[in-house]
Amino acid sequence: MKNILLLIILTFTSMVFSQTDEEVLKTIYTQSLTNGKAYEWLDHLSNTIGGRLSGSENAEKAVAWGKTELENLGLDNVWLQEVMVPKWIRGEKESAYFITGSGTSVPVAICALGGSIATSNSGLKAKVIEVQNFEELSTLGKDAIKGKIVFFNRPMQADLITTFSAYGGCVNQRYAGAMEAAKFEAAGVIVRSMNLRLDDFPHTGSMSYGDLPNDQRIPSAAISTIAAEKLSEALKNDTNLEFFFKQSCEQLADVKSYNVIGEITGSEFPNEYMIVGGHLDSWDLGDGSHDDGAGVVQSMDVLRLLKESGITPKRSLRVVLFMNEENGLRGGNKYAEEAKKNKETHVFAPESDSGGFTPGGFSFDCSDANFEQVLSWKALFKPYLIHYFEKGGSGADVGPLKNDSNVLAGLRPDSQRYFDYHHASNDTFDAVNKRELELGAATMTSLVYLFDKYGTNPLTSSKALKN
Amino acid sequence: MKNILLLIILTFTSMVFSQTDEEVLKTIYTQSLTNGKAYEWLDHLSNTIGGRLSGSENAEKAVAWGKTELENLGLDNVWLQEVMVPKWIRGEKESAYFITGSGTSVPVAICALGGSIATSNSGLKAKVIEVQNFEELSTLGKDAIKGKIVFFNRPMQADLITTFSAYGGCVNQRYAGAMEAAKFEAAGVIVRSMNLRLDDFPHTGSMSYGDLPNDQRIPSAAISTIAAEKLSEALKNDTNLEFFFKQSCEQLADVKSYNVIGEITGSEFPNEYMIVGGHLDSWDLGDGSHDDGAGVVQSMDVLRLLKESGITPKRSLRVVLFMNEENGLRGGNKYAEEAKKNKETHVFAPESDSGGFTPGGFSFDCSDANFEQVLSWKALFKPYLIHYFEKGGSGADVGPLKNDSNVLAGLRPDSQRYFDYHHASNDTFDAVNKRELELGAATMTSLVYLFDKYGTNPLTSSKALKN
Repeated sequence: MKNILLLIILTFTSMVFSQTDEEVLKTIYTQSLTNGKAYEWLDHLSNTIGGRLSGSENAEKAVAWGKTELENLGLDNVWLQEVMVPKWIRGEKESAYFITGSGTSVPVAICALGGSIATSNSGLKAKVIEVQNFEELSTLGKDAIKGKIVFFNRPMQADLITTFSAYGGCVNQRYAGAMEAAKFEAAGVIVRSMNLRLDDFPHTGSMSYGDLPNDQRIPSAAISTIAAEKLSEALKNDTNLEFFFKQSCEQLADVKSYNVIGEITGSEFPNEYMIVGGHLDSWDLGDGSHDDGAGVVQSMDVLRLLKESGITPKRSLRVVLFMNEENGLRGGNKYAEEAKKNKETHVFAPESDSGGFTPGGFSFDCSDANFEQVLSWKALFKPYLIHYFEKGGSGADVGPLKNDSNVLAGLRPDSQRYFDYHHASNDTFDAVNKRELELGAATMTSLVYLFDKYGTNPLTSSKALKN
Repeated sequence: MKNILLLIILTFTSMVFSQTDEEVLKTIYTQSLTNGKAYEWLDHLSNTIGGRLSGSENAEKAVAWGKTELENLGLDNVWLQEVMVPKWIRGEKESAYFITGSGTSVPVAICALGGSIATSNSGLKAKVIEVQNFEELSTLGKDAIKGKIVFFNRPMQADLITTFSAYGGCVNQRYAGAMEAAKFEAAGVIVRSMNLRLDDFPHTGSMSYGDLPNDQRIPSAAISTIAAEKLSEALKNDTNLEFFFKQSCEQLADVKSYNVIGEITGSEFPNEYMIVGGHLDSWDLGDGSHDDGAGVVQSMDVLRLLKESGITPKRSLRVVLFMNEENGLRGGNKYAEEAKKNKETHVFAPESDSGGFTPGGFSFDCSDANFEQVLSWKALFKPYLIHYFEKGGSGADVGPLKNDSNVLAGLRPDSQRYFDYHHASNDTFDAVNKRELELGAATMTSLVYLFDKYGTNPLTSSKALKN
C-alpha cells in the first residue's frame, strides 16, 4: 500500500515536472482564462471599495481586503509592512468657468491636482495667459504673467505610437507647472489634462511645489481637453477674458499605512526573492480599476495561478501591493529599504502598472547578459501573441530595488486607451475587459515561472527552449 | 523660368521618392494619427445613418454617402456596381420568457436570427431541450425533440487566445441549428449568443434552412449569455419548464443594391488591380461601428492617406465598400464575377473586417513564395508594434478573388473585445477608440504602399528593406 502511494506521488510529481515549458504556459493561460480570479477581485476592489487615495479610509479598507484575500490563498506568509504616507484631500467638488468678451459665463470641467493648495474660499478670478511650455514662461517674463492664471495647453503628441511616450512629453506641465509659474508670480495654474482624446473628463495627478515657500505656492488644477480647446479658442477672441476657479483641497499630516505582502517560500533557494506587484492606492476620482487595480489583482493571481498549475517556485516569490505610488512612492521606497536592511537578495521584480489591457509583452530594466537570457524565452510566448520584449523602464514601485545583477520588468499592455481613463472619473470597472485582464495575469505568471526555472545565469540560457 | 520650374518639380519628385520605406511608413502613420478621416467618417456612418442591413433604407443611404465621400476625395473613378441582395426584416421587437417550476415568469433577452421565419402571431410556447451540439440531437432522436424548443448552449471556448477561433468552434449552432433541429421536428430553436462575456445582449447573425421545404422551417433566435445561463440553471430544477418567444421577422423578395467603388488609376501598371475593402452593410441591432463600419472607413482612408502622403500607386488601387457580407455575400461574389468578366488582374486584396481595435498585423492567403516576399516587409512595421504576419484566411468579401498568384489578406486587430459587440445592439460608435481605428488605417495603407512598390515577384523581395 505504501509503495502504491509512493508510486502515485512520484507519478504525479513527474507528471507536473515533465511538462515542457510550452505545456506549462498553456496550462497557465488556460487556468487564467477559465479559472482566473483577477476579475472577481477587481470587481470587489473597484465596486465595493472604490477609489483609494493614500491616507484615505478606502485605502485602509483595501489594505485589509488585500491581506484577507492573500491569507485565503494559503500562502506561506502574509504580512503588512508599515509605511507613513502623505494625506491629501480634495474637499468639496471644484468649480470653474470663464467669461467671454460678450459676457457669457462658460462652465468648464476641472479638478485640483494632487498636492495642490486650495484657492481662497471665494475662489480665484484672474486673466489667463496660455503657454505651451516653460521656455515660453521665461520669454514672457514676470510683467506678462504676474497676477494671472497660467494655462498650460501643450497637448499630448498624437503621432507617438506608445501613449506613455506622449505622456512623458507633457507631464512636466502638470507636475512642475505651478512651481515654474510661481517664479513669475502667477496667481494660479490650469493644465490641459493628460488625455489624447477630446472629452470632458479632467484628469488629476501629482504635482509638486519643490522647495517653494508656503506663501509663494499657487493653486493648480487640470482642465478637460474639451474645456482646454474652448478656453484656447475664447482667448483668441479676447485675451483679457477672466477665468474663475475654486477648490478646497488640503495637504494634511502624514498618516500610517501599509504595503501588503504575501509570500511563497522558495523550495530550493528561499533566500533569493522574486516579487510581482502593483500599487494598491489610486487617485480618488474614479475607482482606480486600470490604475492600478488591474496590476494589483493580476499580481495576486500570479501566485494563485502558479499554485493552481501545480508549480512550486524554487525561489521565494512575493506579491507586493504597494501603497502610495501615486503621490509619494513611499511604499516602493519602504519595501526597498527593508529589503536592504534585511539583506534580502531580490533577483526579479516585474510590475504591472500600465492598465489591464491586452498584454503585448514586457520592458526589461537589466544588464545585457540578463536580457539575452530573457530574450531566449520570447518564442514561448508567441502562441499568446506576446511579442514585445525590449529593454527599457520597469515600474515605479519596483524601481528602488534596482542593482547591477537583478532583472526589473514592466508588463506592457496595449497603451492606446490608457490615457482615456488615467487619473479620471471614468477609470472604472466597466472599462476593464475580463479576458484582457486575465491575459495579463497569465503573461506575468508565465514569465515568473520561466525566471524561476532558469534564473539569470546566461550559461543556462540555451536550455530554455530545448526543454 | 521653365528650367527653374523643372528643377522645382524634379526636386519635389525626388524628395518624395527618395524617402526610405521607413520614412514613408512614418509619414503614413503620422498622417493617420494627426490628420486621419476614418473616425469622422465612422461618426457619420454610425450616428447619422446607423445600422444598415442589406435591402434597408439605411443601406441605401450608406451607399449614397459612400459614393459622395469617395467623389470628394478626387479619385480617378467612382462608381456603383449593381447587385441584387436579400431583404430580411426583423419586424416588431421580439419578446421571450420562461416559466419556472414555481410558476414565476422570467423575461429573457432574445433576438431573431437573420433569415429566420417568424413565430405565429401568438408566439411559440413549448418545453425546452438543452443540447451542446448536433451529435447530441442525433442521440436524443425525434421522440425526445419533437414539438420542443431546442436550446443550443455550447459556450465559446475561453482558453483560445484568438476569439475568432472560439467563434469558429460555436457558430454552427447559430447557422445550422434550426436546419438540424427541424430534422427531428423541433418546434423552434434558441441559440446561446456568440459572446465570451456574460451580459444581457442577444447577438444576431445569419442562419440558414438549407434545402428545407418551407413547411418544415422553424423559428430561430439568439438568447443573451446571461439568459442562457439562467435558463440552463432553471432546466436543472425543472426539465418540463416552458419557454415562450415571439418574433415577426420576414424574408422579402430580393432588392437592388450596390457595391461602392473608388479608384486611383495606376501610374505604371494600370491593368494590375489592388483593392482594399470592408463591408458597408451591417446587422440592424447596433450601428455596425466595429462590424464593419471600421473596415469601411479604414479602407476609404487608405486611398486618402496615400494621396496625403504624396504617393501615387503604380498599380491601380480601388477601395470597395461591399454590400451584403452579413447575410449573403452577394457583393463580394458580384465584384469577383465582374472582375473575371472584365479580365481584370487582381494582384492584392486586403480586407478589414475584424473590428476597429489596435492592429496586430495581417493574415495572408497566398502562395509560399508570395508570403516570403510579404514577410520581408515585416521588420518595417516593428515601430508600430505590428508583429503578426501569418498565413491564414483573409476576408469574406475578397475571398472570391482568390487564385494561385494573388495575395489576399485580412487585417488582424486585437480580438479580445470583438465578440463583446459583434452583431449586438452595443456595437456602437462609442465602443471604437479613435487611435486604434487610425492605427488600423495606417497599417493597411503601409502594406498597400509596400505591395505596390515591390509587387509579388520573389526576385525583388530582397530590395524591400535595403531601400
